[in-house]
Amino acid sequence: MQSARVDRLPMSSPSDVSPILALLQSGAVDPLQIIAILGKTEGNGCVNDFTRGYATQSLRSMLSGDLNADQLGAVSMVMSGGTEGGLSPHWLMFSATEAPATLGASLAVASIATRELSPSEIGTPAQAALVREAVRCAMAKAGIATPEDVHYVQIKCPLLTSERIDAVGGNVATRDTLKSMGLSRGASALGVAEALGEAPPATEAMIGSDWSRWSSRASASAGVELMTCEVVVMGMSQDWAGPLAIAHTVMNDAIDAVAVQDLLNTIAPDAGLQGAQDRLVAVLAKAEACPDGAIRAQRHVMLEDSDVSSTRHARGFVGGVLAGLTGFTDLFISGGAEHQGPSGGGPVAIIYRKDKHS
Amino acid sequence: MQSARVDRLPMSSPSDVSPILALLQSGAVDPLQIIAILGKTEGNGCVNDFTRGYATQSLRSMLSGDLNADQLGAVSMVMSGGTEGGLSPHWLMFSATEAPATLGASLAVASIATRELSPSEIGTPAQAALVREAVRCAMAKAGIATPEDVHYVQIKCPLLTSERIDAVGGNVATRDTLKSMGLSRGASALGVAEALGEAPPATEAMIGSDWSRWSSRASASAGVELMTCEVVVMGMSQDWAGPLAIAHTVMNDAIDAVAVQDLLNTIAPDAGLQGAQDRLVAVLAKAEACPDGAIRAQRHVMLEDSDVSSTRHARGFVGGVLAGLTGFTDLFISGGAEHQGPSGGGPVAIIYRKDKHS
Amino acid sequence: MQSARVDRLPMSSPSDVSPILALLQSGAVDPLQIIAILGKTEGNGCVNDFTRGYATQSLRSMLSGDLNADQLGAVSMVMSGGTEGGLSPHWLMFSATEAPATLGASLAVASIATRELSPSEIGTPAQAALVREAVRCAMAKAGIATPEDVHYVQIKCPLLTSERIDAVGGNVATRDTLKSMGLSRGASALGVAEALGEAPPATEAMIGSDWSRWSSRASASAGVELMTCEVVVMGMSQDWAGPLAIAHTVMNDAIDAVAVQDLLNTIAPDAGLQGAQDRLVAVLAKAEACPDGAIRAQRHVMLEDSDVSSTRHARGFVGGVLAGLTGFTDLFISGGAEHQGPSGGGPVAIIYRKDKHS
Amino acid sequence: MQSARVDRLPMSSPSDVSPILALLQSGAVDPLQIIAILGKTEGNGCVNDFTRGYATQSLRSMLSGDLNADQLGAVSMVMSGGTEGGLSPHWLMFSATEAPATLGASLAVASIATRELSPSEIGTPAQAALVREAVRCAMAKAGIATPEDVHYVQIKCPLLTSERIDAVGGNVATRDTLKSMGLSRGASALGVAEALGEAPPATEAMIGSDWSRWSSRASASAGVELMTCEVVVMGMSQDWAGPLAIAHTVMNDAIDAVAVQDLLNTIAPDAGLQGAQDRLVAVLAKAEACPDGAIRAQRHVMLEDSDVSSTRHARGFVGGVLAGLTGFTDLFISGGAEHQGPSGGGPVAIIYRKDKHS
Repeated sequence: MQSARVDRLPMSSPSDVSPILALLQSGAVDPLQIIAILGKTEGNGCVNDFTRGYATQSLRSMLSGDLNADQLGAVSMVMSGGTEGGLSPHWLMFSATEAPATLGASLAVASIATRELSPSEIGTPAQAALVREAVRCAMAKAGIATPEDVHYVQIKCPLLTSERIDAVGGNVATRDTLKSMGLSRGASALGVAEALGEAPPATEAMIGSDWSRWSSRASASAGVELMTCEVVVMGMSQDWAGPLAIAHTVMNDAIDAVAVQDLLNTIAPDAGLQGAQDRLVAVLAKAEACPDGAIRAQRHVMLEDSDVSSTRHARGFVGGVLAGLTGFTDLFISGGAEHQGPSGGGPVAIIYRKDKHS
Repeated sequence: MQSARVDRLPMSSPSDVSPILALLQSGAVDPLQIIAILGKTEGNGCVNDFTRGYATQSLRSMLSGDLNADQLGAVSMVMSGGTEGGLSPHWLMFSATEAPATLGASLAVASIATRELSPSEIGTPAQAALVREAVRCAMAKAGIATPEDVHYVQIKCPLLTSERIDAVGGNVATRDTLKSMGLSRGASALGVAEALGEAPPATEAMIGSDWSRWSSRASASAGVELMTCEVVVMGMSQDWAGPLAIAHTVMNDAIDAVAVQDLLNTIAPDAGLQGAQDRLVAVLAKAEACPDGAIRAQRHVMLEDSDVSSTRHARGFVGGVLAGLTGFTDLFISGGAEHQGPSGGGPVAIIYRKDKHS
Repeated sequence: MQSARVDRLPMSSPSDVSPILALLQSGAVDPLQIIAILGKTEGNGCVNDFTRGYATQSLRSMLSGDLNADQLGAVSMVMSGGTEGGLSPHWLMFSATEAPATLGASLAVASIATRELSPSEIGTPAQAALVREAVRCAMAKAGIATPEDVHYVQIKCPLLTSERIDAVGGNVATRDTLKSMGLSRGASALGVAEALGEAPPATEAMIGSDWSRWSSRASASAGVELMTCEVVVMGMSQDWAGPLAIAHTVMNDAIDAVAVQDLLNTIAPDAGLQGAQDRLVAVLAKAEACPDGAIRAQRHVMLEDSDVSSTRHARGFVGGVLAGLTGFTDLFISGGAEHQGPSGGGPVAIIYRKDKHS
Repeated sequence: MQSARVDRLPMSSPSDVSPILALLQSGAVDPLQIIAILGKTEGNGCVNDFTRGYATQSLRSMLSGDLNADQLGAVSMVMSGGTEGGLSPHWLMFSATEAPATLGASLAVASIATRELSPSEIGTPAQAALVREAVRCAMAKAGIATPEDVHYVQIKCPLLTSERIDAVGGNVATRDTLKSMGLSRGASALGVAEALGEAPPATEAMIGSDWSRWSSRASASAGVELMTCEVVVMGMSQDWAGPLAIAHTVMNDAIDAVAVQDLLNTIAPDAGLQGAQDRLVAVLAKAEACPDGAIRAQRHVMLEDSDVSSTRHARGFVGGVLAGLTGFTDLFISGGAEHQGPSGGGPVAIIYRKDKHS
């Protein structure tokens, strides 16, 4: 049986792959067993964030010593920019080892990439359909039996640049490059929602507009460095063994600490918040500035600040909410939660040790 | 006997004084009874933040209908820029009314302004000494008997600009205008620390350098719009009556939710977090990027981000921590906590209703 | 006969009206003779730029000593944010005095404000129509005989905020507040173009899309501080006397120094560039990032920079081009040139002394 | 005899080395003949600009197919971040080929790297001394006979980060990471000044303070991606052949177009500005916000803008001045001109074809 391993590792710069290299060189992780590497890099998380491509290039360069092109291509690399506030740049490496069967379900992970999109498809129902299929394939690959067993789907999807817009003669969903990031994230999320039975197939009118449609487990991040969608599905499966589990909740707004507190309480009901914190392995979440301009009827300024992107504001702020609850700052918080959780809120997943001593 | 009243009011822009005007026009507050008006405005909180001056000008213009120049001069106006993340721009108006004596101590407030500083004094021991004297005067004015009864000192202090530097021939603590804000805040805080018996008199070598010296109750904010230091002292006094009280704690780092949780637990021990939240009237706090570049040994990037000032990062992030705990976003969080709480942490004060039904 | 006077005055902060006050107090300018005051303030020129409102409030407060409400309402106040690069914040005050008739035409100026717009009208053909009518009225008021005699139309127009969008139930041209600035500027410019016979009436499909439609003399600036459109028309008229004249050209792209050089050469053909510079009284221009992402086939990054708005980039850059040619930095350069000159370029007007010794 | 070749090539992103690769694959340039590759990348040019490291990594990866480690180490790679305004990201590749002797002197280029600096040496006289020696070595290597024959020295030097500061126990010239960039650039420039006989040896008191000391030909750029100083010396030498030449001037302030115009006039005195533009191969310049806060007595706001670094403002603005004069936007303008040209101004070098038809 397979057992999932998750390593949360510091990153001193976008090119700092040394903590991963050390793990590989120690033999603790076999390069062939890596399923996906997520990176929370310190760029602005917006259009001109090259820390994502730099991190990916650094990873590829490091792994190319051990893996051939096909093997390298099978490793999902999902870089998400933005560690505002006190958030800490880090890697999350998912790998699988052989392990004896254990009782009950365990964390299961699989990844898949769609074909390259045309710039004309970015932010459209065509992108949603590609993601939907990728989620289904990845579920099958991971042995995750039902949509209910899926607890997080991390997606990296492309965005539009001036050059890409020109390449298709301006036949694109939007000419605004920053806005294209939101449409791409939104289309991806609606693809997840459809795959998980949370929403009907995405339409053009729905993407970026009908905020009543959302997935409780999608997390999409857009970046300039790819033209495919990389999809990493995380869930619980009887086919997997090992000490790890995953669970999720939905924050109803940016300060919905109660939802997360309740989720944490399910981990170690008798051990209090500190007991839950001790078992946390990774936290993944989405954040966004509520599009109606207010949080609990009080105005926020994130959408009116022309100096700092609202996605940067939101990541740092929700980062504070979650760091206060979890006690650490290397949280994988991704900005721009279009169709990912309710308007102004977002999904949160925790990966944790099922047992105190594991 | 005097009774303190605190109104927390929304602000739709820096010039929106309408909620205050409504209160005055309704008769609920007499303009002559206003002690201080704090404003959390939506600028960047740094050197070129004109929302502070704009708000002050708007307040003065509104109040000049009711108050003569002397009366107007007696109202402290302390504008603090920066409502990053989901923080909400707002006013905190402190006023005093006659009320029957009540049992025990109640919230007491008084304000005082120092003389105008020379640009050469900004960020120096001379500024600290002026603030120290102002704190002592304000304590006497408010009838706050001992330093222990002081729970928060909000200060607005000046900063250096290119013009002010030139005006004194470059004879200044620093030629870096952004840095001058930190030195000014730091000098102010050390003045408070000395007044409250927390630290010896400030020296040049101490200001902006020796982070082991700090006040647990100082909150200083620097702005381009004044050359005096405005000092508002808040504490508990037997000379005051009424339903309100104030308490404080110190966050040891930016994610020290436990300290604040413990403080909230003292308000309504049997009513849980929700019970405490229901009694909150105002929250005031300081935030800063820990100068050593890490939070609980994990790297943060606030000090290396040349696009967004570290003070903006810190306000939004600590804003998230506190909003998660308090359930609201119009928190008076001021950035740049030099000598205000330990390195990377900061003082937090809560004003609350002593009784559930008050 | 009337004679136009133009004063270009420094501004040490958005509230620094002292150089204007000094002129009024000296008797050089009669407050009743002020037609318009333009201000180039040092904010970001985007949605949350409160320096415009702050400057306006400061002007109103200063002038209210001399002018009653109606008289004050007749003075156009057009604040434009953004002095990037080495641009210098300044005021341009236009006033008119009685003077003996002079030979030939002279600078003529008049201003008018439209009624307040509904948020639903911002950025739509309705706004264009209101501006068109205002231009025609102002031409008549100034005695400017033909559209060819109009050399610049400076407009201040409103933008959408989250609150304004909500106030009309989301029935707006765009929900993106930053984008609303461009649509508002574009609609205004197309109104000018129609009034001057440069383009047919604006349609919804034209605004913000059909860049082949533009005015060679419109300059629009959007701001949060008003809901009307303020329209200041500048041209040449036989009805006006005095030493000043105005001329204009169009930069075909952001680095079209040749067009401006040619314009300057017409002022003092025998006196060289220095001779022309000596006669300059004011320079007004528009700047924008070319929407196709390139200048003379070389990529620019203004539209992909998520840290700094493209309007800020463009103002500073075109400011450099023009400062190199004119030898001074208090140039009234306004960003966002939608339908104002060709795509990537923009109108430039110069006000100058007709005679060397005047 | 050697002949210098300079290729100015577009860059669609920091990792886009394809135009260089195409030249190498075409046989036009032999990888072994590359002396230096300069890159003007599109990051913020400040502390957290990772586009420089990303570009360097991309170059190394591309060249490692053709060059061994020693050969690769001999190629200077000098990345300078920041293409504000309409500036265009690009590469400048310097290579040398064998060529028949030609009459007179031609462009000569050589590069050298110092040893790695300790963080404690950054921004100190020790760094200046290392750079001075490197300049002298590179002159000898290039066969540049006298200091007068040196027309530009491009330096890439290191900066301080929180981690580097900690690594030497805080024993550094400044704890402010952004400020460390200025001190490092300044120390480098004073090293050049000494080597060229323009200033005495740098002292601690001189660096970052005594602006009367400067080099007319130094251009230093600081980056996080190296700990050595890379020094590229460009000049004229009788030992070199070929069609290219280099000349320089000094802008006395940010809008000193006259100095550059005069320089251009020396290239093709009879052919006018257009004639000079046609012969330009590359333009290299420095830009900075004048520390006294004004340009020709008019206030600029670059040093008071806490949203956008003054180096970003200055690059875009001076970029406008130079693009207006040269007619193109891929100008190698580097920000932060401490001790590089007079206060507020900076050196400008042009590489051009000596003959119209070459």
